[in-house]
Formats: sequence, structure tokens, C-alpha cells
Amino acid sequence: MFKLQPIVVKTVAVSLFAFTGTVCAQGGAVAPAPNGITLPEGYRDWRVISSSHREDNHTLRVILGNDAAIKAAREGKTKPWPDGAILGKLVWKDEAHPQWEKATIPGEFVHAEFMVKDSTKYAATGGWGFARWKGMEQKPYGEDASFVQECFGCHAPVKDNDWVFTFPSRLP
Amino acid sequence: MFKLQPIVVKTVAVSLFAFTGTVCAQGGAVAPAPNGITLPEGYRDWRVISSSHREDNHTLRVILGNDAAIKAAREGKTKPWPDGAILGKLVWKDEAHPQWEKATIPGEFVHAEFMVKDSTKYAATGGWGFARWKGMEQKPYGEDASFVQECFGCHAPVKDNDWVFTFPSRLP
Repeated sequence: MFKLQPIVVKTVAVSLFAFTGTVCAQGGAVAPAPNGITLPEGYRDWRVISSSHREDNHTLRVILGNDAAIKAAREGKTKPWPDGAILGKLVWKDEAHPQWEKATIPGEFVHAEFMVKDSTKYAATGGWGFARWKGMEQKPYGEDASFVQECFGCHAPVKDNDWVFTFPSRLP
Repeated sequence: MFKLQPIVVKTVAVSLFAFTGTVCAQGGAVAPAPNGITLPEGYRDWRVISSSHREDNHTLRVILGNDAAIKAAREGKTKPWPDGAILGKLVWKDEAHPQWEKATIPGEFVHAEFMVKDSTKYAATGGWGFARWKGMEQKPYGEDASFVQECFGCHAPVKDNDWVFTFPSRLP
């Protein structure tokens, strides 16, 4: 799926190292998605909205949100989610727990994918911009900007939930 | 399991309201566990360490950590986890996603449980203090302080992993 030329990536990376030494530490060296969306900084520190286990493709998922998304989730204002909200989904392959075989835990990291809400900019895809970075190498998914049609198509079953599969999980 | 007398709880709650109005908003009205451990403040805002799906008791789990735990997890310093680290596990009953039946998502909230590392204070139980609050009502688990033997016994299979089932999940 990923065919961005390695030479281009290398050039970008070298440039970043040469001119802005701090960018790398912030994740800036990761190439943007083909539609221009850049990897959200600091997403590993975002708070949890929910989790899931897909038994069809054997993956575990944790769904995080930026501050705007967390605020909306906790206030129950997710139909629609507000502009500025970003949902991040971290996906791992299933692995059996070595000391508790009936427990499935995250194994190999598959990808991190994001939905960025901007009802004007992304009006053609339900108000959401889609992006995904694959594997530990964080390779952008998609050959060109049309990859979002695949994302959007898969989200069609949840059109009535503002195109979002995630329901914020209940907590006291 | 929960037999702390309602009158005592009510008295404590009234006192908290009367003298420290802000305590309630911080979760202070939740009764402590029978071993004296209090519900960690702000745990809903902690960052993610991992997740799991227990297919034996049909629950989904997200494991969070306080700042000390996140630091240790990211630096790979978890054998042993440092004093001050707290792990929080949020547990929900399995529910099928209404629009994607092969996806299991968090349904009813079951409990939040915690492991508090203090190698001196909790030396008798592997250096960990255990506590659990059940349901949306956040009722402390256990009739008296001996409930921790049940927790500790269940964790025996992971003695070699500092008594912890969770392995920090891999992320780029």
C-alpha cells in the first residue's frame, strides 16, 4: 500500500535534521499523509475514550482523543463531534498473554490512525479528515489523497454516529 | 462483597461536604478500600500503558498509569516498577458493536482497580498495595483488609514480572 519513494523521505528527514534539530524529537520527521495531514504531536499522551477488540482481523485497539475530543466525549457532545476534535486509534495484533492464555493482549504494533474534525475543510468526507501511519516506521498509508475514500467507505455503517465507530466508554 | 456500613459512609460524606466542599469534586467522597488505600485522584486523565480482552470472563480492559508509571514504562524500567508507580485497570463487560458485530467494545462498567507500588509499606504483597472500586457507584471491594490476599494470590503467575500482568504495549 505504501509507495512513497524512499529517496523523498530520506531527503525530507535530512533537511529536518539539518535545519530544525528539535523537530525530530517531536515526531516532525514522520512524513505527512498523502492528503497533507501531519501526525498529531504528542498523541501518545492523549487520554482514553474507549477500546475495542476486532475478532475479524484479530486486533486490539485503544481509542484516544485530543483535549477537544475528550471534552466533547465527557460532555456527551459527540453528535456531531466539534471542529478541532481529533480521535486517535492505536492498533496492535492479538497476542495471547503468556501467563493467562484466555487473555488477549497487544502484540505487534500495526498502525496509528486518526480522524480530524473540520466540518468545512473535510465537508466531502463527513467533516472528517482521515490519516494513518503504519507500523513502528510510521509510514503514511495511501498512494495519493484518494485513499480517504477507502476510509470513508468503511465508515459508512456509522454515518448516523457522525461517521465514528467509537462510543465513549462509561466511567464513574 | 461490600459490607461497609451505610451509616458510616453517610457520616463521612456529610463531614466532607460540610468542611471541604471541594473534596467531593475531586472524588474524595468515594470510600477508601478496607486496607486504607484511597481512590487515586484524576485517574481518568492518566495515560495508557496497555489494554486487554479477557475471553474467560468476557471483559475488556484498559491499563493506565500515573506519571511515575508512564515514565517507568517508557524507559523500560518495570522489573521492578519504581516506588510511587500506580497502575490503574479499567474494566468493562463485553458488548458487540451494533454496527460491526465482530468488534467487541466496552459495555457496562465493572470496576476500576489499582496497584500502588511501595516496596516498604507493601513488602508482604510483593511491594504492591491493591485496591478496587466496583461499578459506577465506586464501592470499595473487600470486607476487610485481608481482601488483598485474593488479589495477591491471583497475581502469583506473574511473580517474575514484578507481580504485574501488564506488559507496556509497543508504540513508535
